[in-house]
Amino acid sequence: MQQSVSFKVYYEDTDSLGVVYYANYFKFMERGRSEFLTHQGRSVADWNADGFLLVVHSVQATFKKPAVLGDVVDIVTTFTVPSVYRGRFAQRVERAGELLVDGIVDVVCLDANQNLIEFPPQLRALAD
Amino acid sequence: MQQSVSFKVYYEDTDSLGVVYYANYFKFMERGRSEFLTHQGRSVADWNADGFLLVVHSVQATFKKPAVLGDVVDIVTTFTVPSVYRGRFAQRVERAGELLVDGIVDVVCLDANQNLIEFPPQLRALAD
Amino acid sequence: MQQSVSFKVYYEDTDSLGVVYYANYFKFMERGRSEFLTHQGRSVADWNADGFLLVVHSVQATFKKPAVLGDVVDIVTTFTVPSVYRGRFAQRVERAGELLVDGIVDVVCLDANQNLIEFPPQLRALAD
Amino acid sequence: MQQSVSFKVYYEDTDSLGVVYYANYFKFMERGRSEFLTHQGRSVADWNADGFLLVVHSVQATFKKPAVLGDVVDIVTTFTVPSVYRGRFAQRVERAGELLVDGIVDVVCLDANQNLIEFPPQLRALAD
Repeated sequence: MQQSVSFKVYYEDTDSLGVVYYANYFKFMERGRSEFLTHQGRSVADWNADGFLLVVHSVQATFKKPAVLGDVVDIVTTFTVPSVYRGRFAQRVERAGELLVDGIVDVVCLDANQNLIEFPPQLRALAD
Repeated sequence: MQQSVSFKVYYEDTDSLGVVYYANYFKFMERGRSEFLTHQGRSVADWNADGFLLVVHSVQATFKKPAVLGDVVDIVTTFTVPSVYRGRFAQRVERAGELLVDGIVDVVCLDANQNLIEFPPQLRALAD
Repeated sequence: MQQSVSFKVYYEDTDSLGVVYYANYFKFMERGRSEFLTHQGRSVADWNADGFLLVVHSVQATFKKPAVLGDVVDIVTTFTVPSVYRGRFAQRVERAGELLVDGIVDVVCLDANQNLIEFPPQLRALAD
Repeated sequence: MQQSVSFKVYYEDTDSLGVVYYANYFKFMERGRSEFLTHQGRSVADWNADGFLLVVHSVQATFKKPAVLGDVVDIVTTFTVPSVYRGRFAQRVERAGELLVDGIVDVVCLDANQNLIEFPPQLRALAD
């Protein structure tokens, strides 16, 4: 399932080159993952309360075109579970259908004591 | 005129005390000012393109209660022009009607060369 | 006692107007308060481990001149305890002796359960 | 040539899971690249003034262990120029010799009009 959510670019997101600062796209992407989960029925805070922490293990991203102040960007997210210990969010940042940033964010699942655990069935169920 | 806009609290906004980091409320407040302007017909980028830069001159804020991950906060904004060189945004950060942060943000108007100018009539017109 | 600590301005601190984003000065000021405490013998993490959380209650700041990419800014901090429930950091952000931002940050002390407590003697002892 | 620079972790860097927020490691890494350039003789602002903008094209990073409030992290940076249009910073975030984050940041060079150009000889000269 593909989930899309939109955010506006504010001054906080930009830098003195006049575009969105590269690290801030990862904030947008994290918002996209949060809304993906919420849209599927349980928020990040809900999962945390249940003792499941989704923590970023690795990322890769290519920055193709910059967003600027006032732009509305769409974060398009899909989720898969490639192994018992790894979830994968494929995420695109788009502006009016144009691809700005293309990324892969792999996450692991920790329990409430922040120990690595296998992805529980209820999280695997969110995958395509 | 009072304008309200809502934002969700994501991990990016929080700190290791488990609440929204104090400086980040000023990001929410700046989003509120941006949406106030947009709602009145012209965005920050529009004003900038016309050669009017609204720059923060001073702030005061009281942090009464903390917001946490997943909260939806409402930024409630009003605007006055107390003098020819000063605009004033009174802003509240609320959660379900409860006041979290109470702030005053005074702004000045610069021209495209970043020189101080009097508030132009079209910006004064946005005041109550 | 006055404590000064210096930081460089990086892209992360700037916005598309080409200057340091206003909310980010509060990050510099928080670093200044942290270094004030460390310089006095115990870090923020040390105080937290002892069950004392210093939380910002209110701020006021005036932005007089902007810092830009590559600037080195000095955060000059003094501390007083104006009442049993309130500590006050007076902070200046300077560049080569020139005042950029002038601020007052009032903090309260919480215990490990995040309940308000009187400033303990060992924190009052840090005041001038 | 390998360049190392150290930064402390402040509240601004952390999130409500009690560790450094993943996107903020990219801020530390950008500081590391900036200091790499400065150490080689010319700062980012110097290069920009000469009409050379180094812009991130792609990143990959693996987050192995988290940093927490008060940690001092070392950003260890090397630079190569794998092709005429691409510079590569290999960067590690370490704490007391322990690897926390391992990353690769590829950058392109833009001219003052933000058009893509070949890496100029003076930047290629910074590579190992």
